Amino acid sequence: MTSPVSFAERLDQRRRSAGSLLCIGLDPVPSKVPASLGSGAAAVSRFCRDIVESTHEWVSCYKPNLAFFTQLGPAGLEVLHEVRQAIPRDIPVILDCKVGDVGETARAYARGWFDELDFDAITVNPYMGEDSLEPFLAREGRGVIVICKTSNPGSGDVQNVPVAGGDPLYLTVADRCRAWDQAYPASVGLVVGATWPEELKAVRDRVGDQEILLPGVGAQGGDLEGSLRVGLNARGSGLICSASRSVLYAGSGIDFAGAAGAAARSLRDEINTIRATAVA
Amino acid sequence: MTSPVSFAERLDQRRRSAGSLLCIGLDPVPSKVPASLGSGAAAVSRFCRDIVESTHEWVSCYKPNLAFFTQLGPAGLEVLHEVRQAIPRDIPVILDCKVGDVGETARAYARGWFDELDFDAITVNPYMGEDSLEPFLAREGRGVIVICKTSNPGSGDVQNVPVAGGDPLYLTVADRCRAWDQAYPASVGLVVGATWPEELKAVRDRVGDQEILLPGVGAQGGDLEGSLRVGLNARGSGLICSASRSVLYAGSGIDFAGAAGAAARSLRDEINTIRATAVA
Repeated sequence: MTSPVSFAERLDQRRRSAGSLLCIGLDPVPSKVPASLGSGAAAVSRFCRDIVESTHEWVSCYKPNLAFFTQLGPAGLEVLHEVRQAIPRDIPVILDCKVGDVGETARAYARGWFDELDFDAITVNPYMGEDSLEPFLAREGRGVIVICKTSNPGSGDVQNVPVAGGDPLYLTVADRCRAWDQAYPASVGLVVGATWPEELKAVRDRVGDQEILLPGVGAQGGDLEGSLRVGLNARGSGLICSASRSVLYAGSGIDFAGAAGAAARSLRDEINTIRATAVA
Repeated sequence: MTSPVSFAERLDQRRRSAGSLLCIGLDPVPSKVPASLGSGAAAVSRFCRDIVESTHEWVSCYKPNLAFFTQLGPAGLEVLHEVRQAIPRDIPVILDCKVGDVGETARAYARGWFDELDFDAITVNPYMGEDSLEPFLAREGRGVIVICKTSNPGSGDVQNVPVAGGDPLYLTVADRCRAWDQAYPASVGLVVGATWPEELKAVRDRVGDQEILLPGVGAQGGDLEGSLRVGLNARGSGLICSASRSVLYAGSGIDFAGAAGAAARSLRDEINTIRATAVA
């Protein structure tokens, strides 16, 4: 039996083959699904699969967010499953669920998200401590991406609380993520919003080459160029640049999928242009 | 149009009519479902509904945990929906999902958990700050229960980090919960594990009469008597005493439901006995 390739290695393979750091956040809003697809859960499923079909060439990975599927009601997990199944197997899929719970419960989440729905990685919340994340961290071949400094304006309420020693809390979390990546079989990454370039630089300085998921690259007003300049690791990689609305809703007519594909390609190229000068 | 009765008021009404502070955590483990019910998602659904049928007389509320349903795979949300529908309407139901995300995403969670699946309250994680919880806090008639000091051994990793001023972080969170309960339409409660009586006392001192959800009363080894003595509010109430495994798996044979009912009644009575002397 050979050891499974790590999540970080698979992500890097895909980045190289697609020449892309772009991640598309699959956050379907039912009212924005083109009328030509009908309505309800089936239309949302069709919409997401069409987006995958038209954008997959340009992405390093996808990131569906659980909330946009559970809002569909009882059918939501079936739709999420259909969408995950529609993504080509060489493209990693990160479930954005920001989960964290006590041991037995965390093991149940791991079974659901890794074994049953077959996600390659999940996002997790560190507030409950290391033992609440252990069932995820123990999974060889999977990715565990810890929310550290999030993109929302109020993220400082708790994340920037100064702890004894003077650091803001999020840097303490970054230090823990560094230790977990070395201590556990899973690949450990961090979430830092593209709205906080200065904080991103501070986190990159603490975590070496670890993966950083950068949400808010599109509609949330994140600073793409500033974030890339401080966020790329020593190998000019290590960033998961996630955009959602700016790609998913690039067009609203009959060729919405074509418009999304063009927006994805354009954003991939924009990232690569900045990247070329950032590492020069 | 009359204002909806608050979650805290509805919970208090139910406590009085049932004479109970007991909450049953619906955390179904497929391998522990009696063989007589078959297997798979349908058996889990039947098991939970049988447990509700046999225990509802003795409870103030139920608390299904999302993880134990998503571990069933794509059918998980359908099962959760069936179980929620089987609970009598005068008994509040708290979805334990420990959610927290940026605004647009949090609004999607609120739609799913409050509007589509009709839960009366949800548990939330404060790590992302006030604006990430605002879409839940804005919901009149619903409950928002913030994890503060959780029952797991490693909860101190982040929750007990000393912040500038000397308090551990969880007390800063408790102070925020107090302010949110006063500022927003929703009823705001807190989660404090029954494994931490000293910390529970410190939180109760900060939050007045607010609701505290006390998980770990049964199998997690929580200190029921010690927790009740320090955790009850000035009205001898304000505690949601949650037990799961000790009730759900009280019996494993053909009369598993009867055994669960007897365990629930006995735990309700034990809580009331302690409560009678605690407030005397």
